[in-house]
Amino acid sequence: MAESPSAALRRLGFELPPAPQPKGSYAPAVRAGPQVYISGQGPMRGGVTIYPGHVDANVSIAQAQEGARLAVLQGLAAAAQLLGSIDQIRRVVRVVVYVASSPGFNRQHEVGNGATECLLAIFGEAGRPARVSVGVPSLPLDFPVEVEMLLLAE
Amino acid sequence: MAESPSAALRRLGFELPPAPQPKGSYAPAVRAGPQVYISGQGPMRGGVTIYPGHVDANVSIAQAQEGARLAVLQGLAAAAQLLGSIDQIRRVVRVVVYVASSPGFNRQHEVGNGATECLLAIFGEAGRPARVSVGVPSLPLDFPVEVEMLLLAE
Amino acid sequence: MAESPSAALRRLGFELPPAPQPKGSYAPAVRAGPQVYISGQGPMRGGVTIYPGHVDANVSIAQAQEGARLAVLQGLAAAAQLLGSIDQIRRVVRVVVYVASSPGFNRQHEVGNGATECLLAIFGEAGRPARVSVGVPSLPLDFPVEVEMLLLAE
Repeated sequence: MAESPSAALRRLGFELPPAPQPKGSYAPAVRAGPQVYISGQGPMRGGVTIYPGHVDANVSIAQAQEGARLAVLQGLAAAAQLLGSIDQIRRVVRVVVYVASSPGFNRQHEVGNGATECLLAIFGEAGRPARVSVGVPSLPLDFPVEVEMLLLAE
Repeated sequence: MAESPSAALRRLGFELPPAPQPKGSYAPAVRAGPQVYISGQGPMRGGVTIYPGHVDANVSIAQAQEGARLAVLQGLAAAAQLLGSIDQIRRVVRVVVYVASSPGFNRQHEVGNGATECLLAIFGEAGRPARVSVGVPSLPLDFPVEVEMLLLAE
Repeated sequence: MAESPSAALRRLGFELPPAPQPKGSYAPAVRAGPQVYISGQGPMRGGVTIYPGHVDANVSIAQAQEGARLAVLQGLAAAAQLLGSIDQIRRVVRVVVYVASSPGFNRQHEVGNGATECLLAIFGEAGRPARVSVGVPSLPLDFPVEVEMLLLAE
């Protein structure tokens, strides 16, 4: 029998953070039929942005990749709050990775890997989404990276 | 009986503008099953951009919030044109708010509230979507903000 | 009988490139029920970016429009690989066009036309999507433009 996502999460030493508190008039996750739309997530811990700033300026690619992973785990926490458990997630369909970038930085796809490698590790091939990685000049709360996800649920 | 969205719109003193004219080879709104995808909208009146420029430079957060609201109303006008009425909208699923930002501006989520507070006022909890707010260096027609929406229809 | 998309493609002198190789841990195209999500595509040929740089700086609008068309054809190649043929595509639902822009450039919608005029030519009115065009400071691999698509399949 295949390992469940929550078992994989434990094996990998990852931990779901508390479900994110919306910073305004929106929901962390919204279900529409089998689809679950997750709001944009940035890396935070205890209400403080991790690695604030711009990738390739004061934030390294490795730090941004870790930030992308933290953002993914936060998004999965929002999904778990809505669905009961990440074991209800059947497929990761689409991931968008917005990277706070200087105009000269063009390795956003490497930052994107920080998000999707984590999803592959947890969900196996069901965690391999369509992906968009783009640069942005700045993000809310000085996030170095923001991750949006679309999931399919049971 | 709950107030209809069109009645709430009137009570709030909002008015749907004429449905937006596409600035190119696309449709203002496209239906796919129950889902209705609305094209990116910026604040315009009479073919002229309202509050052109960049937030935190020549456009204030309050002006950008009003611009986001105008963009939402324009998107709802596109939905009404397709569906007959905004009373056919069952749920606002996803909203993306692109904010024309200087690299130092990181309160895009406050601009995003201008879009989603208006949706909450009109649709109640059915108007609370998953949301993404990001900065961009510039937008078509010098929009200070552009809003994309995904709706569910009857 | 209406012309098939693949016949239109040949008539127009367009050619699908080889299906794109993911630059990381994602899939070129993911199906979710009738929806097919295509990963962000930039203009490449033989592994090299076409027209690298920023629109309105070292890349002209016309070059960016051609780049957008190449990105669309690459996305259609990803869809064809998943579905067997582009003739399985019933509707182009949503297109997002990210344009590498200087802060002063605000004609992203004209670049967007490069993507969607090509889709209209191939699919007729079924190729007229909801669209979002925005500026970004920089893109992976120095793409001048990146195109994301959502399709409906048979």
